This record gives sequence, C-alpha cells and structure tokens, in this order.
Amino acid sequence: MKVLVLNSGSSSIKYQLFRSHDWQSIANGMVARIGEAEGEVKHKWLTPDGSQDTYQETRPIPTHAEGIDNIVACLRDNGALADVSELAAIGHRVVHGGPHFNKPVIVDDAVVEAIRDVIPLAPLHNPGHLAGIEVARRLFPRVPSVAVFDTAFHQTMAPSAYRYAIPEHLYTEHRIRRYGFHGTSHLYVAKRAAAVLDKPLSQCNLITLHLGNGASAAAIRAGACADTSMGLTPLEGLVMGTRCGDIDPAVLIYLSKHLGLDADQVDRLLNRESGLLGICGVNDMREIDRLAAAGDARAELAIGVTVHRLKKYIGAYYAELGQVDALVFTGGIGENSVRIRAAACEGLQRFGILIDDAANAAADARGERCISASRGEVKVLVIPTNEELEIAQQAMTAVGLQ
Amino acid sequence: MKVLVLNSGSSSIKYQLFRSHDWQSIANGMVARIGEAEGEVKHKWLTPDGSQDTYQETRPIPTHAEGIDNIVACLRDNGALADVSELAAIGHRVVHGGPHFNKPVIVDDAVVEAIRDVIPLAPLHNPGHLAGIEVARRLFPRVPSVAVFDTAFHQTMAPSAYRYAIPEHLYTEHRIRRYGFHGTSHLYVAKRAAAVLDKPLSQCNLITLHLGNGASAAAIRAGACADTSMGLTPLEGLVMGTRCGDIDPAVLIYLSKHLGLDADQVDRLLNRESGLLGICGVNDMREIDRLAAAGDARAELAIGVTVHRLKKYIGAYYAELGQVDALVFTGGIGENSVRIRAAACEGLQRFGILIDDAANAAADARGERCISASRGEVKVLVIPTNEELEIAQQAMTAVGLQ
Ligand SMILES: Nc1ncnc2c1ncn2[C@@H]1O[C@H](COP(=O)(O)OP(=O)(O)O)[C@@H](O)[C@H]1O
Ligand SMILES: Nc1ncnc2c1ncn2[C@@H]1O[C@H](COP(=O)(O)OP(=O)(O)O)[C@@H](O)[C@H]1O
Repeated sequence: MKVLVLNSGSSSIKYQLFRSHDWQSIANGMVARIGEAEGEVKHKWLTPDGSQDTYQETRPIPTHAEGIDNIVACLRDNGALADVSELAAIGHRVVHGGPHFNKPVIVDDAVVEAIRDVIPLAPLHNPGHLAGIEVARRLFPRVPSVAVFDTAFHQTMAPSAYRYAIPEHLYTEHRIRRYGFHGTSHLYVAKRAAAVLDKPLSQCNLITLHLGNGASAAAIRAGACADTSMGLTPLEGLVMGTRCGDIDPAVLIYLSKHLGLDADQVDRLLNRESGLLGICGVNDMREIDRLAAAGDARAELAIGVTVHRLKKYIGAYYAELGQVDALVFTGGIGENSVRIRAAACEGLQRFGILIDDAANAAADARGERCISASRGEVKVLVIPTNEELEIAQQAMTAVGLQ
Repeated sequence: MKVLVLNSGSSSIKYQLFRSHDWQSIANGMVARIGEAEGEVKHKWLTPDGSQDTYQETRPIPTHAEGIDNIVACLRDNGALADVSELAAIGHRVVHGGPHFNKPVIVDDAVVEAIRDVIPLAPLHNPGHLAGIEVARRLFPRVPSVAVFDTAFHQTMAPSAYRYAIPEHLYTEHRIRRYGFHGTSHLYVAKRAAAVLDKPLSQCNLITLHLGNGASAAAIRAGACADTSMGLTPLEGLVMGTRCGDIDPAVLIYLSKHLGLDADQVDRLLNRESGLLGICGVNDMREIDRLAAAGDARAELAIGVTVHRLKKYIGAYYAELGQVDALVFTGGIGENSVRIRAAACEGLQRFGILIDDAANAAADARGERCISASRGEVKVLVIPTNEELEIAQQAMTAVGLQ
C-alpha cells in the first residue's frame, strides 16, 4: 500500500508519496502559483534502479483540482503510483484544528465543517487545506482522506498553560487561547527521542526545539504536550525567520497610535518583516552565521536575541517539567547550526545540560545523534524531523492499517 | 536632614517624608482628584510621642502646585517639617527614563527635557511626574529635585535581552525596546537580599519577583539587572491584577480585525480588564485566594495561570543566570500569599529551590525572612519592598549627602 501526503496552501500543493511496507518516500514535488497565468510544476521520483529522476515545467494550473490531477497523472506516468487504488489513505496537513481535534481523523462532512469553522483562527492556511481536501474527496471517493493537525499534539495542555490572562468571554466566545503549531514535528521527534533513549515515550520528559524558518519549543511531560511556545497563531514565542515571537503587546498599540499602522500593516510587519530579518536584514541562518563570523554586528545581534530567547524557553520548560530526560534539536537550524545549539546550551550545567563540543561540531554528522557530554544528565539530541512521514504514518493508523 | 519623596500622577500626588539619620518615615499621605470639583487630602504623621496621627478632608485641589502647597503646609502644621530648608532633597519617582538614565539624577532643564522626550513611551505617567517636578523646582528653588527612574536599574541589560525581534528602525528611530519597570523595588530588595545573604550585592545572582497589582520579575547577575519581564511598557510579562502580561501579539490583530476594536479599546482591554480580573472577575489576590479555597473554578484558574507564568520566568531567568543565590518574593502578593509562593516553587527541587512549608506559612511572620528548607541550595527570601525609602536614599546619594 501507499500513502499520499498533501500540504495544500492557498496557491500551491506540496506532496510526498510513501510506500507503507518500509516507509520509503518514493516521490515528492509540488505545483505552485495555482490560478496564476503561469503555474509551476516540480516532480521527483525514485526510478526502479533506485536513482532519482525529476521533471519540471511551467504551465497554467487554474485550480486545485487541476493541480492534484497533475500530481496524480505524473505519479502514474513515472510509475510511482500505477493506480489510485494502491492508496491506503491521503494524509492532509491541516495547520489549525482549533479545539476540535487532538488526533488525526478521517475526513467526513462534519470534519470539513470543523476545519471551516476555525478559518478565522488560521485565515492564511485552512482555506487552502480545505480546497485540497475537497478536491481529493471528489476525485478519489474511495480513498479515505485523513486530516492531520499541527495543533493536535498540543491539545493535552492544561488550561493554566493554554489560557491567556484576558477576559474570559474572549476564550468562551472567540476561542482565543494558546493552540500551538508544529505539533506533528514535535510528536515525531519526541517518538524518535524516546527510541534513542530506549524508553517508552509515555515515560519521557522532553524539551523539543523545532527551529526552522518558523520556530517553536514544546515541553513534553510523560509523552504528552504540557506547553508550547506558539499560541493562538504561529506568531508567539521564539525568534523566527521573519516573525517577532514574544514581544510587549503594547508595541502593537504603539505602532497603531504613534505610527498609524492598521491591523493588516501590523500583521505584515510582525509576521513577515520581523524576526531575524527585522534585526539584521537577512532571514537565512546560514547566511547570518557567515555574516556574524565575518564580524557583522547586526548578524551577531540577531543570533544573540535568538539564543537569549531559546535559553529562556529551555529554562521555562525545565521549570514546568521539573525533570528532563532529553533536549531535542530539530528543523533546519536545529539540525544544522552548530553555533546555535552550542550557545543555547551554554551555561546550563546546573540543569544537567552539557554539550560535547566535538560531537556537536562533527562535520560529517548526519541523522539522529546524541551530542551531550557523558556527564550531562540530560541527553541533548539532534533529530532530523520528518513531518511528511509522520503524517503518512498517522494517516495509516487513522484508517486502521497500522 | 529630611528627604521628601513625591510620586505625582496626572491627578494625584503621593508623598512620604523621611528623616535621614535613621531613615524613619515621619509622614506620608496624598492629594488626589487634582483638578476635579472635589479633591481629596489624606495625611498621616508621627507625633512627638511616637503615635500616628491622621488628617483627612475633601476640598478642591485645582492644580499640582496647590497640591504640593497643601502637602508642605500640612507637614509644617503637624511639625513634621518645620521649614523647607530642612530638606536635603526631593526625590521624584519617574516611571520612564527611556534610554537616557541608568541612575538617579539631580533635575535640571536638560533632565526635564529628557523626561518630556519619552512621554510617547509613558503617556500616562511622565506628564504627571513632570508637573510635580516643575512645581517643586519652582516652589523650592533651593532644594535639589532628584529624579529616580523605574527604568534605571534595568539599563544594564544587554542588547540580546532588551531588543525585540522587530525591524531595526523601530529601535533606532522609535526607541522600541525592553526597558523594564519596578526597578527601584527590584534594586531595593536585591540590596536587602545581599544583606541577608551576607555577601556584597556585586557577588549575588538573584531572581526577584515583585508581585503586586503590577508584577514583574528580574534576573540579576552580579548585582546588575540582566533581564526583566516588563518591556516597552508595564504590560508585558507576568499575569497582573488587570494586565494580561505575555500573550500572542496576534491576539491584538485578531481583536482589531474580527472584533473591530481600535487601539484605545485594545489598550484598555489588555491593561485594565485583563489579568486576574479578566480570568476570574476579581483582581485582588486575597479575594481570589478566598474564592479558590471555597471552590470557585475561575479563581482557581486565575491562580493556575499566574503560577504557571511565574514558574516559567523563574526557570527562564535561572537558565539565563546559570546559578542563583536567592529567589526573592516581594510586593503585596509576594510578601503575603503563602499559596502563590508555595506553588511558584513547587517541583523546582532540581534547581535547588525547596521551600520550608512551615516557614512559608508562619502566620505571624513579618519582615525580611528566609523560607527555604535548609537543604535547598537557593535561598528563598521574602523581603517587603520599600520603594519610597529607596527613592529617598538614592536622592540623598545623588545630592552627595550619603
Ligand atoms: N548548515 C546550516 N547552518 C545554519 N542554519 C541552517 C543550516 N542549514 C539550514 N539552516 C537554516 O534552517 C532554516 C530553515 O529551516 P527549515 O526547517 O528548512 O525551514 P521551514 O520552517 O521553512 O521548514 C534557515 O534559516 C536556514 O538558514
Ligand atoms: N494576605 C494576602 N494574601 C494574598 N494576597 C495579598 C495579601 N495581602 C495583599 N495581597 C495582594 O497584593 C496585591 C497588591 O499588592 P501591592 O504591592 O500592594 O500593589 P501595588 O502594585 O498597587 O503597590 C493585591 O492583589 C492584594 O490582594
């Protein structure tokens, strides 16, 4: 059997195809600029001899339906998916499940309504997901569509962690609370960390740091999420590529009263022009690393603010958990930046967190690895995330086939 | 010699008079509702036999000048201050010194301008302070006025702690950064903690928690502020009586886009209708304690959210400091709430933080005290704050008399 994972945005669809017997990824790609004059199509697949082949073209993709048609046609043409009947499930990434979902669900009309219901909470994401889901259900009525939510893993948070200190009716009537995102990634690396620690996940206390363009931290107690840094939206928490993360809420009031920005402008400023980009003009950590090494003071500051925030979250979540088995780094920065990992752990000996510098910096290191010194009581792990694989496996579980 | 401490708001002036040889407070009081039809006047003073006398009346106080006149006349009439020439200094509390001041200064025209310059950062406070300062300088030209800033102690923060991850020009042109407040209180209790620890302050790493109606935490490294929870304004950080503290900044965007609130309404909502009040309808912790004990679920939640946030800051600042000598509770809640102190420290054994339950709950306990268990490596101290005394002493130092 195979599982197709779809991540449909408002104007693009990314996909990945897995075969379930060994969870090998056998094809992936995307269609982008749906609805524009020129669309973009990219496909990669494994050939029978195990090498990788690619196909790329620009052509108009008027609708999500034509996008998915294009993907399936290509999968058929390149032999990755001889027939749609091979699909055990289609796993759809859905950013926001609101308070409705704490695990993946097979999509039916009620699920579609529930995803639609929280569009106000995720206006940039949920409409695109719904477009993909509705097309998939219409085109492949016999293949179950499974919605896998970024928010689901965080639904175990207690009210003291997810409620903001704002008037109650904003929670009861408008559902304003911490939801958290990147849940699929936090859960995936937590499972892998438990495997590395050789303990059941349900006995692991973990702090997981997903540091990519978006970045979030999670405190995991006995395998369940106890807290996470993103909130109502992905804007809260750590310093990100272009998002500010934590900030005095009065800054927004100041921007409105003194600089005359309206809500859309503030939104754009804090979500797209802030973070690393705002501090130093660059949002790519590789480039920032290089600039800082060459003596650029703003790049150095961007790293300083990022690390300072990271340390605060490590400490905060340590205090919440009381005891921690492992600290886990993942995401493009977490998996690759020797400097950020070292700086985030510096001075935390008192917490039993101690990095082995050589292991951290090992140039050829790839894959899951432990970088803590042997006398550090908290294991420090680097675990490459794989949200698509997690979605595929959860979809398979949801349809009862795993 | 004596020192008069003034805290002038937009429509009230609070004062306290100290004699400097033993720093005894010999009079205090306030004039309120300045400019309204009916003003309010309250005075308390020590009589020669050491008992306390009070005077109270309602009468119109048209201007700040008349308010200060009233105060000085009363001090003269009740014998607390025979003549203004007894005053070594007048210490003025000033909430916001912006980036200009890292310690108290004798007020001259340039200082007045600098305080005026940051009115946009503290529109509710600095104008009232300026009114008081200008009247004091005019009425008592021979007595030096000393401005003591709530922000001054926090000026030692590093850029990685005080910069937000927002576009640089908002910092360089609009001075948007973390400033921190309650600095006079944090410094005062830090000095007292050093005395209790019997170490020079410059060798103390401390986490100080000022928990009153407003609430803030500070991380103090080698006696200097390394971080604090309030930011550009006092809105950021801990859960307070009516302020939300930390929140996803996107909540403000949501309030604007979906509920149509303008900046003033959001300001009011988050500064005056949120915090404990927002969660449970009551902003007084004593009352909340009672309600929670009687089984009120919303009061219990308000405590839960408060404690959760407190723990996060204790952990965050512990991580920043690496090693901590003492955790200090102050402010009305910090000094009095057995439950909040116990809950904030619960489960922090791994940090060397362990409360002695009997010492924490001792019904007759007053004044500075240590409530940690002897095997807790971090001392947990309760230290009643005294911002007025600290202002008086700093004013005395600023004029070179101490
Ligand atoms: N070798 C590296 N050193 C430092 N940063 C890296 C390295 N490789 C990738 N990154 C950073 O990872 C970030 C992207 O992370 P990724 O998880 O791919 O993002 P996304 O959230 O878009 O999935 C970028 O800031 C990139 O610079
Ligand atoms: N015994 C007590 N138990 C719990 N809370 C108390 C107690 N006494 C005072 N408080 C609380 O202290 C808070 C006021 O603190 P305070 O430092 O006086 O405020 P402000 O910031 O206005 O100076 C209120 O929430 C009050 O309920």
